[in-house]
Amino acid sequence: MSELEVVGESRCFEGRHITYKHRSSACACAMRFAVFLPPAAAAEHSRVPALYWLSGLTCTEENFSVKAGAQRYAAELGIALIIPDTSPRGVNIAGEDAQIDIGTGAGFYVNATEAPWAAHYRMYDYIRDELVALVNAELPIDPARKSISGHSMGGHGALLIGIRNPDSYRSISAFAPIAAASRSSWGQPALTAYLGPDQTRWLGYDVAAQIRNNPSRHELLVDQGGADPFLDRLRPADLKEACRDSGQRLNYRERPGYDHGYYFVSTFIGEHLKFHAAALR
Amino acid sequence: MSELEVVGESRCFEGRHITYKHRSSACACAMRFAVFLPPAAAAEHSRVPALYWLSGLTCTEENFSVKAGAQRYAAELGIALIIPDTSPRGVNIAGEDAQIDIGTGAGFYVNATEAPWAAHYRMYDYIRDELVALVNAELPIDPARKSISGHSMGGHGALLIGIRNPDSYRSISAFAPIAAASRSSWGQPALTAYLGPDQTRWLGYDVAAQIRNNPSRHELLVDQGGADPFLDRLRPADLKEACRDSGQRLNYRERPGYDHGYYFVSTFIGEHLKFHAAALR
Repeated sequence: MSELEVVGESRCFEGRHITYKHRSSACACAMRFAVFLPPAAAAEHSRVPALYWLSGLTCTEENFSVKAGAQRYAAELGIALIIPDTSPRGVNIAGEDAQIDIGTGAGFYVNATEAPWAAHYRMYDYIRDELVALVNAELPIDPARKSISGHSMGGHGALLIGIRNPDSYRSISAFAPIAAASRSSWGQPALTAYLGPDQTRWLGYDVAAQIRNNPSRHELLVDQGGADPFLDRLRPADLKEACRDSGQRLNYRERPGYDHGYYFVSTFIGEHLKFHAAALR
Repeated sequence: MSELEVVGESRCFEGRHITYKHRSSACACAMRFAVFLPPAAAAEHSRVPALYWLSGLTCTEENFSVKAGAQRYAAELGIALIIPDTSPRGVNIAGEDAQIDIGTGAGFYVNATEAPWAAHYRMYDYIRDELVALVNAELPIDPARKSISGHSMGGHGALLIGIRNPDSYRSISAFAPIAAASRSSWGQPALTAYLGPDQTRWLGYDVAAQIRNNPSRHELLVDQGGADPFLDRLRPADLKEACRDSGQRLNYRERPGYDHGYYFVSTFIGEHLKFHAAALR
């Protein structure tokens, strides 16, 4: 019996956009994710490559699904999109809904070690292991071909998980990522809550620190809006400096006039999908 | 001094997506609309053609803006998108927020004659006259080149306004329109409230009835999802029958498997924009 419950399904660009619910062991709660299966996935015995997309603060699996316009490109390129939620939800932790940067919608793609978060907030394991195993077991996805991307907190997640697991992903990209969560007012509250006050423990989940320690052989593709009002929290200079100092290859593209939102993401998602498609071929 | 107040602006596909607020005399309240100006509109003295997009029940100017992925095509084709709200809001009419099919978000593109709605619910005049005059006066839009489209209640509005004013629009299209509002459980409550119980007065705002009375020289382009769960309310058979009986040209395309939502609209919006672009050249 399938572990996946279909919550909703719509035809889209001749493919299928499906929202699933399942019981997560990593997060010890029900989790949702969305999948776009391109038309190529409908052929018998077909297994298509997949791009995992990690979303930003406050998002669910729905934001990227409805706002990015990615299905058009994914349909053309024959790539599946796997779009998880950004945190456990409704796990009855006091304060889980009180702030946008801790708790619900703010999993930060870490494995929490501190009570009460440690019982549920294990998004690193969820994304890297549990979701991938589930997708590969239940959907017409080629386990050997996956890439990862994301936006803002999800850009942090994509770079972090990609860089720490270079053999698992064919290519890695991000839009306006939080590049140094341990130094960001968007990362510090969550890292304190999930990992405790010892800041040395935060560095395992800090993109710039990971790049300095262990640069990946992948060239990273990063787009950043030049008119993004959150540059002080995203810290793109930390990303560029860490790459320069460590020899990490980085294709960093500042986009003049673009802000932090999905109008920015939608404008350049096609280029990212083509970048990943080339690596997934 | 401009009558338009900028509520928000984002760069998008090298153009500008802007949300405006203004005082409407037709609706006697503040109204919002969104505009996408393609890159071609930035050139000095440039005036680009415009597609007016009318949205469905419960929508604001935001739904189409963020969900349809239309900016990509509009940027390529050099067409502006003008995206009004679907009703007056906050005008303190008892019950205005009580139902999804009367009042807020459900203007139905009519001029109400009945108290208390008549003081504000004049979306027909707002869309046809006031908004067009404002857009032409304040934005780099060519007054001689406009087309109209919409979805569901907005498809009804686009067909209705287009057919009743054939010289004002170069082309007319719709997605899953309410084709016979006077016979639909989605139209009857609003028409009763806005126009009173005399059903002969409803026919001026019934697409199929208007086509029978006075077919337009335009060929109508209509896409309809084959798996749309609201076919009994949309009444596409009434549309096809009215066109057949009156000689109205209709390019009606049933799309197997597609439902009523924006995944359907986003899949075919590019074809509609190309259809309008050809007429707007």
